[in-house]
Amino acid sequence: MPALHLVQASISLKPALDAIGKSMDQRFDRLLAVPDDGRARLYEAMRHAVIGGGKRMRPLLVVAACDLFHVDRERALRVAIAIEAVHCYSLIHDDLPCMDDDDLRRGKPTVHKAFDEATAVLAGDSLHALAFEVLSEPATHEDPFARAELVLELARASGPAGMAGGQMMDLTAEHAAFDIGATTRLQQLKTGALIGFCLEAGAIMGRIPESGRTPLRGYARDLGLAFQIADDLLDVEGSSAKTGKAVQKDAAAGKATFVSLLGVDRARQQATMLIDQAIEHLKDFGQEADLLRAIARFAIERDR
Amino acid sequence: MPALHLVQASISLKPALDAIGKSMDQRFDRLLAVPDDGRARLYEAMRHAVIGGGKRMRPLLVVAACDLFHVDRERALRVAIAIEAVHCYSLIHDDLPCMDDDDLRRGKPTVHKAFDEATAVLAGDSLHALAFEVLSEPATHEDPFARAELVLELARASGPAGMAGGQMMDLTAEHAAFDIGATTRLQQLKTGALIGFCLEAGAIMGRIPESGRTPLRGYARDLGLAFQIADDLLDVEGSSAKTGKAVQKDAAAGKATFVSLLGVDRARQQATMLIDQAIEHLKDFGQEADLLRAIARFAIERDR
Repeated sequence: MPALHLVQASISLKPALDAIGKSMDQRFDRLLAVPDDGRARLYEAMRHAVIGGGKRMRPLLVVAACDLFHVDRERALRVAIAIEAVHCYSLIHDDLPCMDDDDLRRGKPTVHKAFDEATAVLAGDSLHALAFEVLSEPATHEDPFARAELVLELARASGPAGMAGGQMMDLTAEHAAFDIGATTRLQQLKTGALIGFCLEAGAIMGRIPESGRTPLRGYARDLGLAFQIADDLLDVEGSSAKTGKAVQKDAAAGKATFVSLLGVDRARQQATMLIDQAIEHLKDFGQEADLLRAIARFAIERDR
Repeated sequence: MPALHLVQASISLKPALDAIGKSMDQRFDRLLAVPDDGRARLYEAMRHAVIGGGKRMRPLLVVAACDLFHVDRERALRVAIAIEAVHCYSLIHDDLPCMDDDDLRRGKPTVHKAFDEATAVLAGDSLHALAFEVLSEPATHEDPFARAELVLELARASGPAGMAGGQMMDLTAEHAAFDIGATTRLQQLKTGALIGFCLEAGAIMGRIPESGRTPLRGYARDLGLAFQIADDLLDVEGSSAKTGKAVQKDAAAGKATFVSLLGVDRARQQATMLIDQAIEHLKDFGQEADLLRAIARFAIERDR
């Protein structure tokens, strides 16, 4: 993917996003060859969810974090596949009728619409397992300490103390009573934990000790919140045609969001401030952090 | 758990099952302390699914396989927790209305009945992640090669090429057209893969090379099929009071099972033959395989 190396902090992130998107599509296509038996439908559903769509923000974050420490691109892309598999599994399950009940995702019917609910549950479960299979495979000679640490961090970020816990809060909490602190906490679990993993993965593969990870964790925390505020703004101001999913759902559901709590203008200011802060965390890095800087700007300038 | 060491091949497995059950309950209780926030309901649902029920056959198999190679009991129990977490997650999702639609499990309401469907989806997902967290934790000083290999094997056994793939076949196949070969293949994926993992885990932790695992794999394959035939027999002849779940569901659903294909008598003969064969695979082991032999006999003599 030479395009990724050409990205400057000041220019569009589009070539990098296109390149990572193509790379993810090719890899998922190879990983998910459809077997000629009763499992074919399951594999078709998994392919529907992971091929040909999505911004691929998380895979790009993994690649950008690996760039900081000159980690081999092949190793970075393997972890990128794992995190995207987890992200897509969570979207399949979140879209189920018993959860957010969404019909549209990435401009296509959601998995339970294109297939059926049982297949959607199993396709999510299967992508979840696939992520850990890819992370623990010895194929690319990742050292086993790093493989075990990557598995541990991804399991924590996606489990009940992370993403799944945040989704639970989102489903059960009395949102009307939520203040900005509670909303921040919810989002740090629901979307922040997985974004944090993307940066942590770069540090693990770059063999950076705990003590050297503070800037990356600060970047991840600020980026994650800004990304979520931008999502909330898109839900209010965006179009379904561009985002590829239903919009104005939060207000309809009476959910407290950063926008409902702060208003559109202050929410946008807050997102900009967080992105400035995220980039400030990278001040001791040189050109090798340009991709992370560009991703931060893109996070609040995107229209989907 | 001294009771486990006292079991003789010829005596009841009950003390060993009671001991492993108590041990699993205590460990899940510690692992799943309920947080004082919006995730409390999620943890309660996970606890409902994993504490105080089930035969704990898979955890006992892990312990028995570890006994063969004198693997430390503490290490064995950590893997036992992981496999039981995966087994319980699969039961929660299988019981959902869009899947098998069951109201009763282990003598209690299923998770979506006791809580709700969204919580059941998330509780299953969370137990799935928990399994990989437990396996990859450095806490008990498992060597990282073994940790990565255990994760890889469990991910494969539970994913689309294993358990989840078998469940898909079970949901979509035209069962009326199934012959004994297709039914065997389905069950080898749906239940056999995870049982295979229990034995493989013992070999991994015992540092037994691939070439030395043939007897264990033969035992696992025969035991898995016999176990499934026994389940099919219980579905026809058992009582809901004893099994703690609905019975006679397969016939009502028009599913091909070993019993519908072979009839009750031949199915029982087949199960007995498989168990003799499973025990025969262990002929080169001494007393250290007594627990595995006792489990094999129990698999077809149980009433739940």
